[in-house]
Amino acid sequence: MTAAADTRNSAANKHFDLGPAAELVSKEEGHRQPLAPEFVSLEDFSPLEVAYDFGRVRREDIEAGPRSIWRYKSLLPVPSDVEQHPNTEPGCTRLIRADGLAKALGVKKLWIKDDTGNPTHSFKDRVVAVALAAAREFGFNVLACPSTGNLANAVAAAAARARWDSVVLVPSSLERAKVLMTAVYDGSLLAVDGNYDDVNRLATELAGEHEDWAFVNVNVRPYYSEGSKTLAFEVAEQLGWRLPEQVVVPIASGSQLTKVDKGFRELGEVGLVEPTPYRIFGAQAGGCSPVATAFKEGHDTVQPVRPDTIARSLAIGAPADGPYVLDTVQRTKGAIEDVTDEEVVEGIRLLARTEGIFAETAGGVTVANAKKLVENGQLDPDAETVLFITGDGLKTMDAVQEHLGPKATVAPNTEAVDEALGR
Amino acid sequence: MTAAADTRNSAANKHFDLGPAAELVSKEEGHRQPLAPEFVSLEDFSPLEVAYDFGRVRREDIEAGPRSIWRYKSLLPVPSDVEQHPNTEPGCTRLIRADGLAKALGVKKLWIKDDTGNPTHSFKDRVVAVALAAAREFGFNVLACPSTGNLANAVAAAAARARWDSVVLVPSSLERAKVLMTAVYDGSLLAVDGNYDDVNRLATELAGEHEDWAFVNVNVRPYYSEGSKTLAFEVAEQLGWRLPEQVVVPIASGSQLTKVDKGFRELGEVGLVEPTPYRIFGAQAGGCSPVATAFKEGHDTVQPVRPDTIARSLAIGAPADGPYVLDTVQRTKGAIEDVTDEEVVEGIRLLARTEGIFAETAGGVTVANAKKLVENGQLDPDAETVLFITGDGLKTMDAVQEHLGPKATVAPNTEAVDEALGR
Repeated sequence: MTAAADTRNSAANKHFDLGPAAELVSKEEGHRQPLAPEFVSLEDFSPLEVAYDFGRVRREDIEAGPRSIWRYKSLLPVPSDVEQHPNTEPGCTRLIRADGLAKALGVKKLWIKDDTGNPTHSFKDRVVAVALAAAREFGFNVLACPSTGNLANAVAAAAARARWDSVVLVPSSLERAKVLMTAVYDGSLLAVDGNYDDVNRLATELAGEHEDWAFVNVNVRPYYSEGSKTLAFEVAEQLGWRLPEQVVVPIASGSQLTKVDKGFRELGEVGLVEPTPYRIFGAQAGGCSPVATAFKEGHDTVQPVRPDTIARSLAIGAPADGPYVLDTVQRTKGAIEDVTDEEVVEGIRLLARTEGIFAETAGGVTVANAKKLVENGQLDPDAETVLFITGDGLKTMDAVQEHLGPKATVAPNTEAVDEALGR
Repeated sequence: MTAAADTRNSAANKHFDLGPAAELVSKEEGHRQPLAPEFVSLEDFSPLEVAYDFGRVRREDIEAGPRSIWRYKSLLPVPSDVEQHPNTEPGCTRLIRADGLAKALGVKKLWIKDDTGNPTHSFKDRVVAVALAAAREFGFNVLACPSTGNLANAVAAAAARARWDSVVLVPSSLERAKVLMTAVYDGSLLAVDGNYDDVNRLATELAGEHEDWAFVNVNVRPYYSEGSKTLAFEVAEQLGWRLPEQVVVPIASGSQLTKVDKGFRELGEVGLVEPTPYRIFGAQAGGCSPVATAFKEGHDTVQPVRPDTIARSLAIGAPADGPYVLDTVQRTKGAIEDVTDEEVVEGIRLLARTEGIFAETAGGVTVANAKKLVENGQLDPDAETVLFITGDGLKTMDAVQEHLGPKATVAPNTEAVDEALGR
């Protein structure tokens, strides 16, 4: 048995310093248990979530903090010295006013939260940084994940920077860009003969066998997922410490959407913002829209599907947080839509053309759904809205390449240029 | 004649609001002339540079400014309302302490300025944003450039965001990622049958014929190049308002290196930092090292070469600012080195492995040169050093792909994983 496992087996007796995090609570029946690297309640078999005992949290302290997600450490399950350990320092990405896209969509006041500026160019750097910080406190020393791309990049980079070993499992069919951007960090990248479901199942088995491996989205998932709250915190701070009226969030496992909601609620609870009402909208791709389908049919459970969409980073057919997404969207009076792959590509191009941002397919899903939600009257065009763009177009070039290229190929003289441009 | 041209023909009579910028000065003999979209002195045929009349510039005002390069607008040739116009809001990228790489290189205190976090993932977003702001004031309405990649991405994105037309000229052999990341913004991207020299020549001709086209790196180059000073400003602010002792900067045209120096000097002049001594080191690839060669041979002019290196973003065989780079490096007691393409790849991998940052080939050039400069005793291992990583690995994947891949492909069971990892 490893030292790490020893540490964790005495979890009940040890006080872990995870800042304001107080205990774990099961999402279904609210059973409470001490902080530990566990993700399912043995009482009701529902997912565990972090509950807090927040102290006094002041805007000035946050504003004087580091220019990364650690400025919000008093609202996250991380040790109080978290920024002293080498980490990728994600977050504090741009929130830009998007008047060009607003005009194209027919809405009044629109913002883009552009998370392509993160260290490995997706929001996954946020959740992985929180998972690593918690995993260090629990005594793990290997960072691991099953992934189809963005998470693989983020885990391999974060582990390299922290000087941890990493084990990243990907389907053997994964695209070149994602393989290279994982392999370059020199951890243990393994291609698995099988689809993502096979890889995921394998990860859960390995988490049981290797007591020093922290699978960020398996055994330390309750901590990992809290990292998405920082998207909500940053939006509120960047708007001048207030909540937007509407947000549109892409849905993969559904965790991000529920945590953006949790982030907004916690900001109100600790008094950092006025708890003004907001509506949360979910965005899926038609080729993998189990949550949108459940929403439209009025169900409170989600029927799994077999994904078939170019939005691979959202292609989770059995989304773990599906039911909680439905709760959140209903409670906040939002809606969930889905769009075709053609609309996804048009969403990517519309965002690029109007705002100069090149998003991955998931960003195309968000923009295209926003358009559809305005058109069908569900998104209020007069209410201030934030779209979450959570990944980078350079990683999903295959989705757009057949649609894009130079306007013309010309000879190297001014006449040829003028003719090509019709000037 | 266009309205834009009218505006500019009365340049001598009009007062352009370019903030603290006072006039243009020729680099060779110091001839002065009014601010205008011109780049070569007709007196001595040397490049024109912006001279300033700085007012009082205070740290508090900068710190209270926007989280982008516009916090430094009182030190840039841009209108005082610059941040009110839609722009990509570049800058404020990470400066991270790089203890892992420091250990690998055998130096004591090392920082990485990671400019991959910019909107299109290179430092070009900085210079383009300044060029666009000045071009708007001069009355242009089309943003243009010749480019082999990063600049094309930055110009097309900035123009889209500002709702300007763009004309981007690239060699017809350009790689897929760079073509796609330019075309997606829906400006006028033209592939030119010819090499980069042909494209460059064509751009200069077009700049003469189209009076409403601002070629960022041709007719508004004096303003454009000032954008690189923001790298220096950010490093100083992020270090707590002080200068580092050594910096390593990649050399393409050489403009960036000379402007980092200008930025450090201006910070001292206006009293934002103590004017402590610093040394500037230049980094080239062996397949295109005209400035390194001139430095080593003790020349004060640069002999053009025909580039042949994987570091395409640095492959300028006749660097416009070559002589000024030599001046700067000699004055600050730095040095210039060059490395092989194999060392460039190893530099990319070393940075990724130690710090979790995936740089483009230019970043590999910087890291590999830093290593060489330590080994040959030119870089002081005891002095605090900053390396400039100015572009993103996702854009130059071809350079590393044959070296990288999964450690193994395994069956989807735990035994296969354990065997592959030797556990």
